[in-house]
Amino acid sequence: MPQHISPEPDLRHHGDAEVRGMGAELTDLAVNVRAGTPPRWLRERLAASMDTLAAYPDGRAARRAVALRHGLPEERVLLTAGAAEAFVLLARTIEAKRCVVVHPQFTEPEAALRNAGHEVERVLLRAEDGFRLDPRAVPGDADLVVIGNPTNPTSVLHPATSLARLARPGRTLVVDEAFMDAVPGEGESLASRTDLPGLVVLRSLTKTWGLAGLRVGYVLASPGRISRLERAQPLWPVSSPALVAAEACSAPPALAEAGHAAHRIAADRAHLEYRLAKFPSVTVCSPASGPFVLIRLPGATAVRSRLRGLGFAVRRGDTFPGLGPDYLRLAVRDRATTDRFAEALEQALGG
Amino acid sequence: MPQHISPEPDLRHHGDAEVRGMGAELTDLAVNVRAGTPPRWLRERLAASMDTLAAYPDGRAARRAVALRHGLPEERVLLTAGAAEAFVLLARTIEAKRCVVVHPQFTEPEAALRNAGHEVERVLLRAEDGFRLDPRAVPGDADLVVIGNPTNPTSVLHPATSLARLARPGRTLVVDEAFMDAVPGEGESLASRTDLPGLVVLRSLTKTWGLAGLRVGYVLASPGRISRLERAQPLWPVSSPALVAAEACSAPPALAEAGHAAHRIAADRAHLEYRLAKFPSVTVCSPASGPFVLIRLPGATAVRSRLRGLGFAVRRGDTFPGLGPDYLRLAVRDRATTDRFAEALEQALGG
Repeated sequence: MPQHISPEPDLRHHGDAEVRGMGAELTDLAVNVRAGTPPRWLRERLAASMDTLAAYPDGRAARRAVALRHGLPEERVLLTAGAAEAFVLLARTIEAKRCVVVHPQFTEPEAALRNAGHEVERVLLRAEDGFRLDPRAVPGDADLVVIGNPTNPTSVLHPATSLARLARPGRTLVVDEAFMDAVPGEGESLASRTDLPGLVVLRSLTKTWGLAGLRVGYVLASPGRISRLERAQPLWPVSSPALVAAEACSAPPALAEAGHAAHRIAADRAHLEYRLAKFPSVTVCSPASGPFVLIRLPGATAVRSRLRGLGFAVRRGDTFPGLGPDYLRLAVRDRATTDRFAEALEQALGG
Repeated sequence: MPQHISPEPDLRHHGDAEVRGMGAELTDLAVNVRAGTPPRWLRERLAASMDTLAAYPDGRAARRAVALRHGLPEERVLLTAGAAEAFVLLARTIEAKRCVVVHPQFTEPEAALRNAGHEVERVLLRAEDGFRLDPRAVPGDADLVVIGNPTNPTSVLHPATSLARLARPGRTLVVDEAFMDAVPGEGESLASRTDLPGLVVLRSLTKTWGLAGLRVGYVLASPGRISRLERAQPLWPVSSPALVAAEACSAPPALAEAGHAAHRIAADRAHLEYRLAKFPSVTVCSPASGPFVLIRLPGATAVRSRLRGLGFAVRRGDTFPGLGPDYLRLAVRDRATTDRFAEALEQALGG
């Protein structure tokens, strides 16, 4: 299979396309959703909510629960139909002269900004720096800066102090924390930092709780910003089951469960890194902090194709700005799955 | 309670606000969702879909099913997160110099247009004409015309031939058919009229199937228009359960059930009109064709307040442009509920 270096990555390519239509027998390491989710208690809670669908959604209880979970007043919280809606709302409501997206990262923020007519500059973090942020790389007059933490696909967790240094009056700083709840302790989260001017934090329930199909996420920002985003939303923007999920997943028992899952992911990721370390041609981008790792290996496109033949879907890296065709992203799975994957990778590399 | 004629109706007021927080004991004639919905088979289908929420939504099967249901090619169909999202998408993508909304009607289309920066002219249909459309009342150079059929809140069903006469090259004609599936036979629907230039038909599953909380609807239009709307949607705009519902409710057994329900609604509406005819001060806007009726009675605001005290929520009419404080909208309910309501109304009128 020939390698192809695209001059401009396809920003609308996502991991779900790598699994879709590939047959149920494919083991999915392409999509970063926690395996075995949603948990039974949550499925049952959601199934019970089907009895109340005749009523229009009422987002008040979910908003209260999310605010309480982050120790914030309710007017700093906006529920959205997934982080994807939040990106579109931000892109449509923001008045920015110089938009900067720190790459490599999830491509939807840039796609939404371009779609809304903004020009976007990219700050490319470098492999030789471990894709870590140097705040000085961000132009001082950028009045919109978007960054992920921990970052998809690099799995790099930026220190809160570095990110906080990016915040300043006259600038909107968007921190996509879609994977933060998979980091034990969430120590680098800016979710509760009401002191930082222009800060917008995006959160998701998708990955930890397996709710990709439900479309639910939320924005944390100043009350003024939240009002502007809310006015740009359609009427009844978030479905009742999504609101039920947001409320349930913000409650203390769910937070304890998510915290436990975060520790298990860390252990499973360590096992994955241990198995990958045995392949001399594979470099893991480390330290990894998300529920996935980014690897570099020569001929990744061909390896990915062979892995598919061996029953494993992995995420191509070349659609992320700043990465080339030598990158793949692997979701962290349980040890048994990782062991099977490592065997397949050995075959794929030898093939 | 003093009557209040607002100089500008509150376009964001909807029936759900009349029920919300009023206590579970209030009988709801304010929201136009069919009682006893969603049916058990649909609740079970949706509950089963909770097992697949970890996957991102895949809208292809729903799109196929909706296209098949209307005898249209798939590229003429777009699933949306309720009709509300469709209004916002239309408002944001349309380039129109003269936008006309035919009132009284559902206020969200106008609210979405204004929110997107459009100026909106109103064509007010008149009570003395039975709120029927005279196509000549629409300015010839209007390049966007929005009309409901059957119309909320008047319950008037405009003839397809009258509406078709509004379509012309260079004009977008938006027909909101959110309640059309409650009309036996759907004879005046334009859903399958691919011959009319600029036609956009909006449909909903909310009312007949009791899915207000799920956020699901769809747009039928030319392939070019559908593409433009789709590009303006967020990624994964419709949740998996909503897609499951769209597919299930477009299948022949569901259509048969909806057809049956439409006939029952017509019978129940006739009973409601029969009971209302006994009140000399009450005028029913007729012929009514939707799952609700519009009534005129002097002192409606006070009557509505008294009805609330007697346990019945009805929809105020004064937030619809073109209606005054003397109007109320009543949802069609089963005969027993209607009988109880008629007794309460007698008390409220005498009080």
